[in-house]
Amino acid sequence: MNLPGVISLTTDFGLTDPYVASMKGVILSINPAAKIIDISHHIEAGSIAQAAIIIREAYPFFPEGTIHVAVVDPGVGGKRRPILVKIKKHVFVGPDNGLFWPIIETHAHVDIFQLTESRYFLDNISHTFHGRDIFAPVAAHLSCGVAPRKMGPMISDPVKLEYPGPKLTGDVLSGQVIRVDQFGNLLTNIRREDLARFSGTGKPIIRLGKLIIEGVRKTYGEVSAGEPLALIGSSGYLEIAVNQGRASDVSGLNREDIVGMEIHVNRV
Amino acid sequence: MNLPGVISLTTDFGLTDPYVASMKGVILSINPAAKIIDISHHIEAGSIAQAAIIIREAYPFFPEGTIHVAVVDPGVGGKRRPILVKIKKHVFVGPDNGLFWPIIETHAHVDIFQLTESRYFLDNISHTFHGRDIFAPVAAHLSCGVAPRKMGPMISDPVKLEYPGPKLTGDVLSGQVIRVDQFGNLLTNIRREDLARFSGTGKPIIRLGKLIIEGVRKTYGEVSAGEPLALIGSSGYLEIAVNQGRASDVSGLNREDIVGMEIHVNRV
Amino acid sequence: MNLPGVISLTTDFGLTDPYVASMKGVILSINPAAKIIDISHHIEAGSIAQAAIIIREAYPFFPEGTIHVAVVDPGVGGKRRPILVKIKKHVFVGPDNGLFWPIIETHAHVDIFQLTESRYFLDNISHTFHGRDIFAPVAAHLSCGVAPRKMGPMISDPVKLEYPGPKLTGDVLSGQVIRVDQFGNLLTNIRREDLARFSGTGKPIIRLGKLIIEGVRKTYGEVSAGEPLALIGSSGYLEIAVNQGRASDVSGLNREDIVGMEIHVNRV
Repeated sequence: MNLPGVISLTTDFGLTDPYVASMKGVILSINPAAKIIDISHHIEAGSIAQAAIIIREAYPFFPEGTIHVAVVDPGVGGKRRPILVKIKKHVFVGPDNGLFWPIIETHAHVDIFQLTESRYFLDNISHTFHGRDIFAPVAAHLSCGVAPRKMGPMISDPVKLEYPGPKLTGDVLSGQVIRVDQFGNLLTNIRREDLARFSGTGKPIIRLGKLIIEGVRKTYGEVSAGEPLALIGSSGYLEIAVNQGRASDVSGLNREDIVGMEIHVNRV
Repeated sequence: MNLPGVISLTTDFGLTDPYVASMKGVILSINPAAKIIDISHHIEAGSIAQAAIIIREAYPFFPEGTIHVAVVDPGVGGKRRPILVKIKKHVFVGPDNGLFWPIIETHAHVDIFQLTESRYFLDNISHTFHGRDIFAPVAAHLSCGVAPRKMGPMISDPVKLEYPGPKLTGDVLSGQVIRVDQFGNLLTNIRREDLARFSGTGKPIIRLGKLIIEGVRKTYGEVSAGEPLALIGSSGYLEIAVNQGRASDVSGLNREDIVGMEIHVNRV
Repeated sequence: MNLPGVISLTTDFGLTDPYVASMKGVILSINPAAKIIDISHHIEAGSIAQAAIIIREAYPFFPEGTIHVAVVDPGVGGKRRPILVKIKKHVFVGPDNGLFWPIIETHAHVDIFQLTESRYFLDNISHTFHGRDIFAPVAAHLSCGVAPRKMGPMISDPVKLEYPGPKLTGDVLSGQVIRVDQFGNLLTNIRREDLARFSGTGKPIIRLGKLIIEGVRKTYGEVSAGEPLALIGSSGYLEIAVNQGRASDVSGLNREDIVGMEIHVNRV
């Protein structure tokens, strides 16, 4: 694997506290040439599923050899294992709590190692901040060329994440809204392929709460301003949007209510 | 032009979603040595004018050869052109919707190119995220030394931005508040030179809503704590502030109401 | 001192306005190889104490030779001096208003210089933005190897910060909550050593508002979900937390009320 020295960070730490900066300081202390890129630090506190979805969406756009550190870690200091997940072109470092399950699940060749070699940790390990004391230094050492297998024994029983996939029941394809973005777009868990297989050449009818949308568009401007539409979003999933507006507002629900909301697709 | 490999980013994406990170991953995949600096990702959704003002304020402080990417792009996927704007020391990349008009308008030598050479784009172009699929890779290739003219044909009819300038009516100079900053300072569109030409050696009287302020100060501490004052801000524009307070609060209006509010200057 | 070219930034500027970006542009214009790391830009406007505490917490994790710039500067443009504080492994640059007092106070060997050599500043110094015009360029020049003593005369009377330490009164150790973090954890000013000296081998009883907590735990998971606990946080200070919850909510107070709230520790 090529090693460009890129390390991505995803946490629920926010940017007000000095926690993210401490991790970056640790990384640069070990590898002064590391290039650190924030994916998001605004994951909801403890939301493993939200972080897992965001990492899955962003990682393919990073250079081969990027080391992705994720710290959404409600079990820190307890028995959950610190792990490293290696696929062909990327490495992931963080707690073994399901964060990397969407990646593990969809790759045929995955090596997972438990992080036990404390020589790659900080000297003093706190009980509450393994992001700084274990995951950041391990990522920095990996970015310097230390082989993943040096970090500890291989394991084969990573914690799985229960996250909903789309379901076909009779003549209805059901999915869920899994993310509401900055623009109020409602991102679902129905992939382009799921929809194509289901609808064939027909025009699907999509129901979400009170909204009924016919057909899938290519871009926002195909409907009038303020009108809702369905399209395949930039990550390849079915998305509900409003041209020059916010689908989250139009749906008449607040942000928390929407996530996980059922979406139903009918054939015409 | 010297090429330091610096790429600045300005968007309305926020920092919660993985959109900004995806752009950074794309850039580093093409130019691993790029230095990426965020200008702001908290532009109000779709506010081209706000982004245009912020870019105009920040870009002169960046190194010669910086490539500034701006993505506030409500027309993404439609007919608006992707463009590149080259002035003597800086390059700007983004949608042709007025974002760069304040820069185009104030420079004698400007070359504008439409981005048509898809070999500098990602392989798959989504209909909704040209920041990641077109603008980021184009910027990365430019930062590697690809000449702007290689990106597509030169154009001469960029979209203009209608944004208000100060006006002289009889004996009154009128301007507008164009930005309220983190500290509640009210930044106007009246430049130091406009005011000097208008007031000469006299003391201007400035009216903004209920506020009446006499004279222009150099620094906050020249008035008592809690008192409003006018000064020329750090970017060379007339600014209304309150020493150790928030002018936006004192004016009795909320943030949205203030932007665009008229300010009037009288000679004594 | 080794110079890795790392510059950290701490301000109360937020990330919406172009102020932080302007500082970064200035730094890269002087030292294109500088690595700029944000500690926090979400310090409350003008809160010198909050910034001082956050810098103190983060700086030890940065590489030797890091230059830490801090700009919380309500006195900008007035008589307060711009300074540079040098300890053995780190340099701090910012206004002389107490920001670096916790660092000065706890180090035996500290050199402090007033920044007077304007050749290391921008050519035009505004009255309201010394972060961009003085502190950023000075830090960039330092990161290029200019010696601190070249920046101006040594001074020995830096402004002190009045910030509360824990107090022992009779049989009670009293401290204060000095920060509420992203997770609602209440960080106090009572250090691990203070507590150990006070409690000896006994189990302390900690009172904060209505909360009464017995003993100090190692990690969140030692109590049931929703239950409050005390532990030594990742920076070595006594902390009140709630397992899988927010101590700030459980205490029944809002964030502003809590900071500065007294905490009392009794021996059993």
